Amino acid sequence: MAKVGVVLAGCGVKDGSEIHEAVFTLYSLAKAGVETVIAAPDMDLDEIDHVAGEPTGNSSNVLIESARIARGEIRPLSGLAPNEIDALILPGGFGAAKHLCDFALKGASAEPHGEIASLIKSLHAAGKPIGAMCIAPVILAAVFRDEDITPELTIGNCPDTAATIEAMDAVHVDCAVDEIVIDTKHKLVTTPAYMLAGTIAELPTGIDKLVAAVLRLAEV
Amino acid sequence: MAKVGVVLAGCGVKDGSEIHEAVFTLYSLAKAGVETVIAAPDMDLDEIDHVAGEPTGNSSNVLIESARIARGEIRPLSGLAPNEIDALILPGGFGAAKHLCDFALKGASAEPHGEIASLIKSLHAAGKPIGAMCIAPVILAAVFRDEDITPELTIGNCPDTAATIEAMDAVHVDCAVDEIVIDTKHKLVTTPAYMLAGTIAELPTGIDKLVAAVLRLAEV
Repeated sequence: MAKVGVVLAGCGVKDGSEIHEAVFTLYSLAKAGVETVIAAPDMDLDEIDHVAGEPTGNSSNVLIESARIARGEIRPLSGLAPNEIDALILPGGFGAAKHLCDFALKGASAEPHGEIASLIKSLHAAGKPIGAMCIAPVILAAVFRDEDITPELTIGNCPDTAATIEAMDAVHVDCAVDEIVIDTKHKLVTTPAYMLAGTIAELPTGIDKLVAAVLRLAEV
Repeated sequence: MAKVGVVLAGCGVKDGSEIHEAVFTLYSLAKAGVETVIAAPDMDLDEIDHVAGEPTGNSSNVLIESARIARGEIRPLSGLAPNEIDALILPGGFGAAKHLCDFALKGASAEPHGEIASLIKSLHAAGKPIGAMCIAPVILAAVFRDEDITPELTIGNCPDTAATIEAMDAVHVDCAVDEIVIDTKHKLVTTPAYMLAGTIAELPTGIDKLVAAVLRLAEV
């Protein structure tokens, strides 16, 4: 049975993983009969009040908050070895751009979190595919820029974000919410998700396609 | 366009609304072309660490945490008027049994939160349907016991929980995870969801059926 890693970055679009994207990712993988391993970095998180959109002044922990989406079935990202999974998928949300890299703060000079960088590089070297949705493709851009690799990916069609991604030496391809971009050379699959989805009803088609393409590239 | 209320009780199965159930509820309603109004009570919540399964000692707010699932589009339950919605749906999770009523603490002598009791009574009096999944049907049992109404409902097939519900003067009907129980007389629809689902893949069928039955009973 194929085994796919899903790395979360908190629980909630404004300071963690986008919940709907994460849930549809887990559902797509379960429907495909794939075993899923959910992981998240064990690091501090500055909480955002999701009503007011403002910091609460409290901090919590990315791993512990991510466990809400995982229903407790989660482990520290540091303990997820590249040789135990056939592929990796990264849902979006601000957590992807704040915890798995610092794109939200630093834009084109963003650096990836060490643990996710190491995992992505090892998977890439082993020829294993990686999927990323919404803003999470910026993590791939940050990791591969440091490797002098030029990935092809999408975050939808936002000109500013696309330009920032191109400034990270990645190639951005405009993409509709229900479509995916496949970088066959580097086995990367990306889809816009809530970068473009106006309602939750628009979300699953692109995510289902991403999961299917990732599993196809994983050849499992 | 039909308008359906969804009342949340936090964010996470152990101290709030079960996230997957809430997301599939919102998705089912969106697919059906229904406008959704999400609400939650503005009240304190004792946080549970979803990795350890233990209290963190911190408190947060049910409305603010629920907003994570709602992507900020939420309002206080006190402001949700029965005449502005055609039906109501209650996802499960411990929050349903801790915040919308105190079943988790008091079992058969559970009392509902005043705001949800008032909303449910008004909707019932107006002949509007109510759906509840997982453990949330106990809210209906608590509200209707105080009204001398005998609802027919399911929480799956757990004998202890079913017996407690019967001790609340409700009729419990065993039900499979992909089925629903409809109380036509009182326009109530219930489904076991994660009371029985072993994986996320088993979840959407029952929830889709619940949403379809609720919309049929709403005659909108």
